[in-house]
Amino acid sequence: MNGAQSLIRTLVDSGVEVCFSNPGTSEMHFVAALDSVDASGGREMRGVLCLFEGVVTGAADGYARIAGKPAATLLHLGPGLGNGLANLHNARRAHTPIVNIVGDHATYHKKYDAPLESDIPALTGWLQGWTRESDSAADVGADAAAAVAASMDPPGRVATLVLPADISWGDGGTVVGPIPPRKPHAVSPAAVTSIAEVLRSGEQVALLIGGPACGEAGLRAASRIASATGAKPFLETFPARLTRGAGLPNFERLGYLAEQASYQLAGTKHLVLVGAKTPVSFFAYPGKPSDLAPEGAQVHTLAELDHDIVGALEALADEIAPDVEPVLHEAARPTLPNGPLTPQNWVDVIGALLPENAIISDEANTSGLLLPTATAGAPRHDVLTLTGGAIGQGLPVATGAAIAAPDRPVIALQADGSALYTISALWTQARENLNVTTVVLNNRAYAILRMELQRVGAEPNGPKANELLDLARPDIDFVKIAEGMGVPATKATTAEELAEQFQAAIREPGPHLIDAAIPSLL
Amino acid sequence: MNGAQSLIRTLVDSGVEVCFSNPGTSEMHFVAALDSVDASGGREMRGVLCLFEGVVTGAADGYARIAGKPAATLLHLGPGLGNGLANLHNARRAHTPIVNIVGDHATYHKKYDAPLESDIPALTGWLQGWTRESDSAADVGADAAAAVAASMDPPGRVATLVLPADISWGDGGTVVGPIPPRKPHAVSPAAVTSIAEVLRSGEQVALLIGGPACGEAGLRAASRIASATGAKPFLETFPARLTRGAGLPNFERLGYLAEQASYQLAGTKHLVLVGAKTPVSFFAYPGKPSDLAPEGAQVHTLAELDHDIVGALEALADEIAPDVEPVLHEAARPTLPNGPLTPQNWVDVIGALLPENAIISDEANTSGLLLPTATAGAPRHDVLTLTGGAIGQGLPVATGAAIAAPDRPVIALQADGSALYTISALWTQARENLNVTTVVLNNRAYAILRMELQRVGAEPNGPKANELLDLARPDIDFVKIAEGMGVPATKATTAEELAEQFQAAIREPGPHLIDAAIPSLL
Repeated sequence: MNGAQSLIRTLVDSGVEVCFSNPGTSEMHFVAALDSVDASGGREMRGVLCLFEGVVTGAADGYARIAGKPAATLLHLGPGLGNGLANLHNARRAHTPIVNIVGDHATYHKKYDAPLESDIPALTGWLQGWTRESDSAADVGADAAAAVAASMDPPGRVATLVLPADISWGDGGTVVGPIPPRKPHAVSPAAVTSIAEVLRSGEQVALLIGGPACGEAGLRAASRIASATGAKPFLETFPARLTRGAGLPNFERLGYLAEQASYQLAGTKHLVLVGAKTPVSFFAYPGKPSDLAPEGAQVHTLAELDHDIVGALEALADEIAPDVEPVLHEAARPTLPNGPLTPQNWVDVIGALLPENAIISDEANTSGLLLPTATAGAPRHDVLTLTGGAIGQGLPVATGAAIAAPDRPVIALQADGSALYTISALWTQARENLNVTTVVLNNRAYAILRMELQRVGAEPNGPKANELLDLARPDIDFVKIAEGMGVPATKATTAEELAEQFQAAIREPGPHLIDAAIPSLL
Repeated sequence: MNGAQSLIRTLVDSGVEVCFSNPGTSEMHFVAALDSVDASGGREMRGVLCLFEGVVTGAADGYARIAGKPAATLLHLGPGLGNGLANLHNARRAHTPIVNIVGDHATYHKKYDAPLESDIPALTGWLQGWTRESDSAADVGADAAAAVAASMDPPGRVATLVLPADISWGDGGTVVGPIPPRKPHAVSPAAVTSIAEVLRSGEQVALLIGGPACGEAGLRAASRIASATGAKPFLETFPARLTRGAGLPNFERLGYLAEQASYQLAGTKHLVLVGAKTPVSFFAYPGKPSDLAPEGAQVHTLAELDHDIVGALEALADEIAPDVEPVLHEAARPTLPNGPLTPQNWVDVIGALLPENAIISDEANTSGLLLPTATAGAPRHDVLTLTGGAIGQGLPVATGAAIAAPDRPVIALQADGSALYTISALWTQARENLNVTTVVLNNRAYAILRMELQRVGAEPNGPKANELLDLARPDIDFVKIAEGMGVPATKATTAEELAEQFQAAIREPGPHLIDAAIPSLL
């Protein structure tokens, strides 16, 4: 058995059953080995071809956010890893487990500085995750099992395994059994009690909830605490996975704009962090603070990111709100709007028609400002947000989520400018016949930058500046682009058209795209 | 004057007049400053919007290969730089001067670890070029002038200037005059004479010619030497810019496949490097050598990369072949072929119809194997090749080349798989109305990997392996994709159609795309 074969067999034994791939020559033995895994146990490695590494890494992120376990990637040398970095950055911020496999030149070949040679450790260092390079074919199985465990080690991370070509084709590979991932640290009863005292102080408390506490159990516990104490719960601005809708507690997310967040937190004397970091401004602005914790407020931490966050929140609820029930949002949908699409009405179409048990990949950016309100009472759904701010996540994450949950409808709400970063995700959706409905919010601009250009206090902008924020010359026709990649697509300019096309897309299996003409907010 | 304004004015004064941009919030002061440059001297900064950073960096590469001076880029933080890395890698291998501007968070904001914060120095380190971060607005002008000079320092490099947002918006910016770039080192007469002795030895000599020696003067000198001595001249496998066609010497490029290169160099006793590195295999293959210098051959260096390579070659020619004229290829074109397109006949269409003074951006990969023969007697043209092997270069490089030479026809010969990496270059071509004719060689496969899968000696490949090399399910319709980005496009399945469409595309101003159905060689 060669190194590549032992790698794939070990991954499958460890529960890694999908590999999003964009291979090159140095990964050919891995590719060949895909057919060698004994599927007798019913488990095998599914190779999913993506046409760009940014799609590979974003899909692995989306997969794991839904599956709760890692997928593997397969990337070609330093440049391939480079192309995948932006979505690995988003995965890092999401604490998503990913087994990130990077092929390298044969060990003895590196010194010749062949054209594709580069400093791979510089790039893996940038990821601030776990990295190992396999030294021999005999080690690959153990390295792979360690990578899976490392990726799942709380709170989750990108675990990169660098696999030189000669290690991949070398003999002596050994399959290694799964290593159970470490469990999250328990939060001590004393820590829970000390937060309970804060909540009993009578002073204004805000809870900032993040990570796994954005799932049902965490939200229910937080709601009980809020009801019993009057504390205000907020969700972190960009949760990796947020469960919401009818029958679940509904909390505001902390605003993306520093002004919003400051308004939400005004008057807070105690800010309690529950699997979230202390709030900071997304960008710096001249003369404005970076730290968004209200001045004079005390910041307390109930649970760090690698702790049992949900367990701590439930223990706190049991202590301070033992007989209190959570407040659950009622089922309620907007009425279907009429007339030309606007930033205000398109979200009502989604809210009115969101199918049961949907997954929303949300990269709607400025166009999505009103989405949370419109969907709060829609059927229960999960929202995957742009955790690291690196645009081009939405379509790949939707692709991976659909692989993880073939029975759930996936809705990608996608800003136009960001969509083009990783547009070939549509091709993978077509090839794999995934149930993804993409709505492109086509406002023909980098609208968020129009806003930011004003907010940073730059001088009144002239024609050259405006030109760099404009996507309307020429107009981008996402219908043609989608059809070019094998995804059926339609154009919507009215709320009625969007509603009709959205319903049809959900009804029919396989991917669809709707190019929705939405005027820019700005 | 703020830092951003001093940056742009200094760049323009130093001759940097184009900035390929994909900005974000941290670059908004740079964007605003584009309108502030005093154009009274007739010089101003042209901002060219690209919809993905890989297009930005590839376009800057193509621009400089033709203009002979750098363009600037504008990239957003670590993830934006990450997206641009692969084409910066190609630029590094091409020794292309680029002033690579990366916006960063405000200096005081970095410690808050906002979502887009990352370790930018890790990425700039990977580039192995020149890097500086501006420490104050007052320094930005001097840093910019130094960056331009560093980028041009022989043999040329990516010079990265990291610009924190508060340095950009801070007051006190000062415009700094141009710093003359260092000249290449002269090659000593003794070194020239020692190579002349090798050439007179009577033993078989091969010249490996690279870098600036792939221009007319270098090629003429090499041809004289070859005629006088019987030495065999070869061009490096992937020249940054190769001038060729009727009226110029025509040399073979050293083969991409190690087998080819070994065949070409067989019997060589002395290998003389002229601005090229000693030949190495692009990838390692089990049981095959990495070093392609023939066994027992002595390797000599006439000129290192940072030397006056063309001057040394001319001095050598004057010493050893004083009265010898170069052998120039006669004007000769293939006849226009008929029938369905094949890997053999499409190149004859290009050879028969290539317009005068064209620039070819060549990422045809396997489909382009026979291109050099078919175009050897076509009118004089420049070829820009895939220097670093990181795919997705072709369309961006064509875009930048067309900005640098608006009066020259640019022909992008583009493999299908690679095209999708940076497909949004088409939109920039449409916006800027560039005279680029793209021919997509659509063989519906990663054909090169089918070959490599066999060459690496992997086990007979099964269905899963084949699936990862196949682009035919669904077929990619490049006509629709191009039209979606505002580029008129047609589909060709016969040689006659390709000829007719190619002529029409050349005749009409602005960009065009031809989706050419070419069966895979393999």
